[in-house]
Amino acid sequence: MLRIINFDHAAATQPLPAVVEAMQPYLRDIFGNPSSIHKAGQSVRTAIEQARSQVAQMLNASPEEIYFTASGSESNNFALKGIAFANQKKGNHIVVSAIEHFSVLQAAKSLQKLGFEVTHVKVDRNGLVAPEDVQQALTDKTLLVSIMHANHEVGTIEPIKEIARLVKERNILFHTDAIQTAGLIPVDVKDLNVDLLSFAAQTFYGPKGTAGLYIRKGARINPLIDGGTQEGGRRAGTENVMGIVGMGVAAELAQKKMPDRIKQVQALRDLMIQSIESQIAHTYLHGHRELRLPNNVNFGFEYIEGESILLFLGTDNIIASSGSACTSKALKASHVLTAMGVSPALANGTLMFTLGIDNTEADVKLLTDKLPGIVNRLRQMSPLYNL
Amino acid sequence: MLRIINFDHAAATQPLPAVVEAMQPYLRDIFGNPSSIHKAGQSVRTAIEQARSQVAQMLNASPEEIYFTASGSESNNFALKGIAFANQKKGNHIVVSAIEHFSVLQAAKSLQKLGFEVTHVKVDRNGLVAPEDVQQALTDKTLLVSIMHANHEVGTIEPIKEIARLVKERNILFHTDAIQTAGLIPVDVKDLNVDLLSFAAQTFYGPKGTAGLYIRKGARINPLIDGGTQEGGRRAGTENVMGIVGMGVAAELAQKKMPDRIKQVQALRDLMIQSIESQIAHTYLHGHRELRLPNNVNFGFEYIEGESILLFLGTDNIIASSGSACTSKALKASHVLTAMGVSPALANGTLMFTLGIDNTEADVKLLTDKLPGIVNRLRQMSPLYNL
Repeated sequence: MLRIINFDHAAATQPLPAVVEAMQPYLRDIFGNPSSIHKAGQSVRTAIEQARSQVAQMLNASPEEIYFTASGSESNNFALKGIAFANQKKGNHIVVSAIEHFSVLQAAKSLQKLGFEVTHVKVDRNGLVAPEDVQQALTDKTLLVSIMHANHEVGTIEPIKEIARLVKERNILFHTDAIQTAGLIPVDVKDLNVDLLSFAAQTFYGPKGTAGLYIRKGARINPLIDGGTQEGGRRAGTENVMGIVGMGVAAELAQKKMPDRIKQVQALRDLMIQSIESQIAHTYLHGHRELRLPNNVNFGFEYIEGESILLFLGTDNIIASSGSACTSKALKASHVLTAMGVSPALANGTLMFTLGIDNTEADVKLLTDKLPGIVNRLRQMSPLYNL
Repeated sequence: MLRIINFDHAAATQPLPAVVEAMQPYLRDIFGNPSSIHKAGQSVRTAIEQARSQVAQMLNASPEEIYFTASGSESNNFALKGIAFANQKKGNHIVVSAIEHFSVLQAAKSLQKLGFEVTHVKVDRNGLVAPEDVQQALTDKTLLVSIMHANHEVGTIEPIKEIARLVKERNILFHTDAIQTAGLIPVDVKDLNVDLLSFAAQTFYGPKGTAGLYIRKGARINPLIDGGTQEGGRRAGTENVMGIVGMGVAAELAQKKMPDRIKQVQALRDLMIQSIESQIAHTYLHGHRELRLPNNVNFGFEYIEGESILLFLGTDNIIASSGSACTSKALKASHVLTAMGVSPALANGTLMFTLGIDNTEADVKLLTDKLPGIVNRLRQMSPLYNL
């Protein structure tokens, strides 16, 4: 089988062999319902609770503060809607940043339609949220602030600890979407001092369809999915047992191997950035240069379309992305780049490369050998370039 | 390994070998994000759409009317909350039956707290909803009626087609929770004339963590999970690809083998009922005798506790249930039996046996050989029996 060079790890990582191996018994042999009190159920219950401990340890949380969900999007909806509905007596105001993932922005929009008020805090040219801007957005009616830990497109890491401090001084709940950081860089809920934190297995070499929400003990939240007593009564529905077991193992491995993984992808990231910048003119690195995910490279190439570059790369079996996978079907310019003040033209010429532990220096060299020629060829055909 | 005799199929069925085999490639080898436009994503997209067609065919729906979710509970919450929020201009009144699954009842309760009004239609001693009772509950403000296709505890099959007709005459949306019927008995959304229908793979020998909602073309519904454009923009979040592929195969097999499966479990059901009734006095079959799921047996044994019987059966590796798995931790009497007018004492002496395709006549005979002795022994110890 032809090897695909995957520079789109933000969309999907390949589950590790140890993860898949741990899941196997739960595909068929062990199939009890964890809520059943008989032994077929109880062995499954034990496996789920082990996974909960593994995830809790990775985030420095207590196991009973970890709630399993089916996707990062569900976690974000659970956080925003669950907190909003449970704390309506306190107020009706929510603060988010302009560059949140669609699942946060759209959940906020739905709440707006139900009478909540939403403030979108701006970001600077590098995608950074200023803590004082969040502070200024707070009112006596603010019940929740949700600012992402790192952006899913440009990789900028936000000053969450400082934002959380300012928010919590006012006795307001703070949520962070850590889907791009949990399992990839150190995420410590106590050190960050957050009340809620979303994470997803698919970003740290676990299965798709399994994610979770950290909820600090004592936080008032309503279920998004009402019903049975699963997940402490906060998220009804029979558990995706195989997925949860896989996420537990992925979390344990992520914690153990994190320093090595960071070192590997960061070296490749820096090589890729340096090599592209030195070879291709009229090219801009989006996102913050230092406060940046170790696996994120995001460039705007002037005068051409990102989609066209992707097509050429595809012929060499290199995959990357012209934006968030969740929005790939929407042909509009990225709301993240737009909020950062990037022009629509440059936004359309943007490509995002997200590295993973299966990438090698040879992969990066193949890309950076091919890319200048592709960009050059496309620019020669571009009416904008020849003006 | 010791064979466990599973009479608790309502809680969990064992995924079939063909289901697990179809899932295997999606555990690791094929790991793309179906929303990615590159080839790693597109092969996954194709697999998801095939599963959608397989499920649609089982329900006589169009593929674009099938929306994947992570559990039956999510499907029920999606239906109730999604319809309620999208149709607020039309009214604020919802009608459910008193014996719905907790995920319907609790979702309705959450809506009540947000200002919606909920009417609970009563049932008779057999757990049957009378269509005229539903009709009488309708008002000019009614926006949704949700009545289950068959009850998850007592197995009574409701007159959905007639109820739907009366509801739709008034131009009101109708949802049915078909989690206990879809894949087990014929379920045809066009014949039933429903607008929304919930189903879950785990009841028809598919994986846990994968379910769905049929939404008739044209029905106005809001997402429960807002965000990206997955599932036609109605359910955001990266898909549980392996689970969805497994559900597709399980649906295809369910449709193909349905007559044989029904014949098999129904014969075992009738043998079990006949054998228990002829051997054990002071014993009552809960639920309707004819309008009954082919795999459901539910008996109240007077003077004793269902939990105690379960413990004895467990020593012979026979598993059954004293109630819905989702409520097994709640020690209260079943709300289903209570609504049917069963006394708390008899409700506590109730056991539910749900049969599956892995059960044999020998299994049933082992149970019906053991059960009279167990019941007798427990009654001898019961102060109530000796009065």
